[in-house]
Order: sequence, then structure tokens, then C-alpha cells
Amino acid sequence: MLKSVGDLVNIVKTIHPKRIAVVFAHDEFVIDAVHEAAKLGVIKPILIGDQQMINSIIREKGCQGSPDIIHCIDPEEATKIAMDLVNKGDVDIVMKGLIDTKILLKGVVNKDYGIRLYPLLSHVGLVSIPGHPRVLFASDGAMNIQPSVEEKRLIIENAVLLAHSLGYSMPKVGLVSSVEKVNPKIQSTVDAGEIVQYSQANPPKDFLIDGPFAIDNLVSLESVKHKGIRSPVAGECDILIFPNLDGGNIFYKTTVFLANGISAGIIIGAKVPIVLTSRADSSQAKLYSILLAVVNQDGLLIAGH
Amino acid sequence: MLKSVGDLVNIVKTIHPKRIAVVFAHDEFVIDAVHEAAKLGVIKPILIGDQQMINSIIREKGCQGSPDIIHCIDPEEATKIAMDLVNKGDVDIVMKGLIDTKILLKGVVNKDYGIRLYPLLSHVGLVSIPGHPRVLFASDGAMNIQPSVEEKRLIIENAVLLAHSLGYSMPKVGLVSSVEKVNPKIQSTVDAGEIVQYSQANPPKDFLIDGPFAIDNLVSLESVKHKGIRSPVAGECDILIFPNLDGGNIFYKTTVFLANGISAGIIIGAKVPIVLTSRADSSQAKLYSILLAVVNQDGLLIAGH
Repeated sequence: MLKSVGDLVNIVKTIHPKRIAVVFAHDEFVIDAVHEAAKLGVIKPILIGDQQMINSIIREKGCQGSPDIIHCIDPEEATKIAMDLVNKGDVDIVMKGLIDTKILLKGVVNKDYGIRLYPLLSHVGLVSIPGHPRVLFASDGAMNIQPSVEEKRLIIENAVLLAHSLGYSMPKVGLVSSVEKVNPKIQSTVDAGEIVQYSQANPPKDFLIDGPFAIDNLVSLESVKHKGIRSPVAGECDILIFPNLDGGNIFYKTTVFLANGISAGIIIGAKVPIVLTSRADSSQAKLYSILLAVVNQDGLLIAGH
Repeated sequence: MLKSVGDLVNIVKTIHPKRIAVVFAHDEFVIDAVHEAAKLGVIKPILIGDQQMINSIIREKGCQGSPDIIHCIDPEEATKIAMDLVNKGDVDIVMKGLIDTKILLKGVVNKDYGIRLYPLLSHVGLVSIPGHPRVLFASDGAMNIQPSVEEKRLIIENAVLLAHSLGYSMPKVGLVSSVEKVNPKIQSTVDAGEIVQYSQANPPKDFLIDGPFAIDNLVSLESVKHKGIRSPVAGECDILIFPNLDGGNIFYKTTVFLANGISAGIIIGAKVPIVLTSRADSSQAKLYSILLAVVNQDGLLIAGH
């Protein structure tokens, strides 16, 4: 179990380097993060994009080593190159560079050359907060806008898969809402009730799940005691599943920007993890997201996925 | 402008005591909070409920002073007593004790003896977070489940009214979502776009408003700079208006339980502020909520509302 997102730096030390294809790598912040990870000896980058710009950034930054560069200035074509590399087994991770997220994801789910593996792609963010004893997995605050109950089940599966790859044998999954009782007027509680009812009838073997809960019921044992809640998940939650994009995004951003949270995030559901950071992410968050993808990919290989 | 929620303790020192009716006061945590506020000399309590239990709690706690007690053990009747006191001008604040919230609010909106003043009742929470330079007003994470655009406008009016009563002449209101552009697939951005468009056509005189924004765009000037956002609200927001109950609740609980936030909250929209704390709130949050009601009520009187 991770004690903090920063632990990823130690974990990757024992891992064989992973090959990462960066789509439109001609961006100084992206190259910074890739270079930091390469210095740790955990990735072998393949930089797809404008070769001249990439070389110029690398020279300016004084980056060591000479990464593989594939020259391509068409975004769809650059995406396809990365997908082909994944399908040939030549790369282990895909990372978004200076390219529109939509174009990259369109390539990922392309029926001819895409790399989708599971029925749904979803984003899982990890955040560790000073004073809180557990790393919190949060999904989905970046990709799925208003998931149905069935889509929420797939979001849960993806997040559990990531947790397993990080060594959590029995992660605790909490369904987030604003109250801890099912209320027909609050859709998130109805969805949570349905999901929990299903898992009571068909108990999952490798995770625990409960809900609906408000945030305090999931992260504070004191609050759980106060309210007299009895649940194996309450107060000690690992994976928080949010009602929708807004809810997940509000949580993730609040922890990072108001609670000094340290974060990392990747897209799960494709043949390889996808690092999809944004400009607003700190260079630390970009680096940790790459390391998370490395550990995830390594854990999946070990688990035989 | 408040620097922290704890500032309320200093502000109330200059205020003439307010009369507070506590509905079903026979609860030790409620009496604790009322007693703390009474010790500061800012409230004169009228305790409605089981007289014998109230007296027994007061004796056990060794509370000083002898508050007015009105014996009543029927919840609807106790609520009506408080409403009548408000309507007669005999109390300035109503506080929920050990009574079902629904019963109290049913009394508040009762057409014959209720105390509703504005078209919508809404909850406004205040939270100050170590390291963040502004107190953040959050609405509505406790009462309105899935407000329409029209209801969101009323939620904004109530929150602005509270900010004015606290001395904010031109509070900055931000409409929270997960992204900063209107996207037809994300309802919260559509609502925000509509509200902002209306206020551009009819500029409000006493507050600034903008959105949609993700949390980081509202609370981090660095993030605003990164993304190149130009807005009088971005990065320096006072009042955060959330897409729905879940979103507001997730924010409020995350700041309190994971960011060491200090909070206070009241219901706005009735003739007097209503203090509606829950068991899960800390005794500090209960006390600060009473103080917030005192300052709000005083500010409203000064402003001539």
C-alpha cells in the first residue's frame, strides 16, 4: 500500500525501464517531465513530433542522453504512430504532449488501429494529503461526464485494476455522495444503492465496496464513529468513486490547490496506461503521473494482465 | 473582509447581543455550543424543549446564567413556538437542536406561521483554510439538491446577501464546474454560461460574477496565469456557487476533513438566519455558526434589510 504519492519515486527504482511514446513532444514542460523520469532511469522515451523543435528544446535544456525521435507534424498521424507502436508491442506507455486531448483519444478508441482494451476508458487520480494516512484514488474527475450505473461499474473496475497493480490486494472502494442514506431525490445515492446491492448479491473477491457516503464518512474515522456508521469501507477508503465529472474534479482540484495534495493521474482501460497531464498540472504532478504509469504497467505485467 | 472564520470571534465583540431560539435544545452538544456563545456575551438564548432534560444538562455542565426555557416536547409545536417568536420580533436567530431537519424546515416555510422571506432558502457555508488568503463562501452543499438556473440565481442572491452583511461591498462570485469553457455536454457549464450571459446584459451593482470555472481557476492565481484566463473573479473568488448538492458537499467536507478548514454555516432566506448544524460538525463549527448568524443578523439590521 502506498503511504504517499511520493513513494512512487522509490518503487520505480526496482522496475525495469518502460518505453514511453510521447505524442507531440515538442513542448518544453512535457520534455522537462520526460527528462526528469528518464534521469531516474525508469523510462526510455520515443518522442513523436516536430524533430527540429524537439531537438532545439533538448539543446536549450541541456538534456542528457539522445532519445529516439520520430518526426511527424500531423496530429492524427502522430497519434497513429504511437498506437502502432503499442500494437506492435514496442512501447509500454503513451503520453500526451502538445496535442488536443480529443484527437489523441479518438486515435486510442479507433476501431482499426486503436488500443482500447476494456469497455470504458477512465481517469484515475491519486492524491496524498499532508496529515491523511492513506493515498486516495479518485475517479473520474477528468473524463467521464455523467456516467450511468453501468459506466460507474466499469469506472470502479478500472480503478480497482490500478490499485491491484500498485499492490493493493483488497482496496476499499467508497461511493461518494452528499449523504449516507439512499434518497430517491438524490440520484448519486440511488446509483450507489444499486451498485452496493449488486455487489452484496455478487460479492467481489478482490475489493470491498460500500456507499453512498459523504466525504467525511469516507476519510474520517471520527466522523464515522460520531454517526454510528458500520462499514468496512467507511473512514478508511482507498478509492473514491464520484457521482460525476464535476464532483470528481471538485475533489481532486480542492485537494491539490487547497490541501497541499501531491497528485498523479493516468487513463486506464487501454492496452497501456496513458499519461494525460494538462498545462495546469505542476511539473511534479507530470513526473509522478509518468511514474504511476510505469508502476501500473509493471504491476499489470507481473499480475499477468 | 474576513481573513478567517475565526475572525468572527472578534467581530461579535462589538455587537449588541442577539436573541436565539433553540428548537429542541435538550442535547448536550447543542447546549455546549449555545453556552460557549453566551459566555462571549453575544446571544441571549431561549431554549425550547424538554425542560427537565435541559435543566439536567445545564446542571451537569455547570453552565452559568439562567436561560429562558419554554417547555415543549412536541417537535411541530416547538417549531411553531420559535416561528411565533420570530414573527413577534422577539428573537433574532433560530437554531436547530435535537429535531429532525425536515420538521423544522416545514415550519419555516409554513404559509400560516412560517418565516420565509425570500423565494428560496439556501445554505451558505464559510470555510477558511490554512495558507489560503481568503475565506471561501460555498453554496449550496447542504440543502438544494439539483437547483435549476433560476434557483441558482436565488442561491447566488442569498450568498451575496450574507457577504454584504459581513462587510463585503463587492464580493466575487464564481460558478464552479470542472472546466472553464461552456460545453453542451456538461450541464453545469451550460447553466453557468446562461447566468453569466444574463449578468453581462444586466450587470449587478453589488457583486462580480463569472464562470464556469474549475476550482483551481477560482482559488489559484498561478493556475489562472498558466491558463491565460482573464476575469475579475478568477483566482480571487469569495463565493463559490456549486453545480449541485453533491458538488458543494464534496467541496465543503473536503476542505474541513482533509484541508484543516475551519467552517461555519447558516441557512439564508428566512426572516432571521437559521443555524442548522449537524452532529458531525465539531463544537467549534457549531459555535462559529452561531457567531455567523449573529454577525449576519447585525449586518442586515445595519444595512436596513
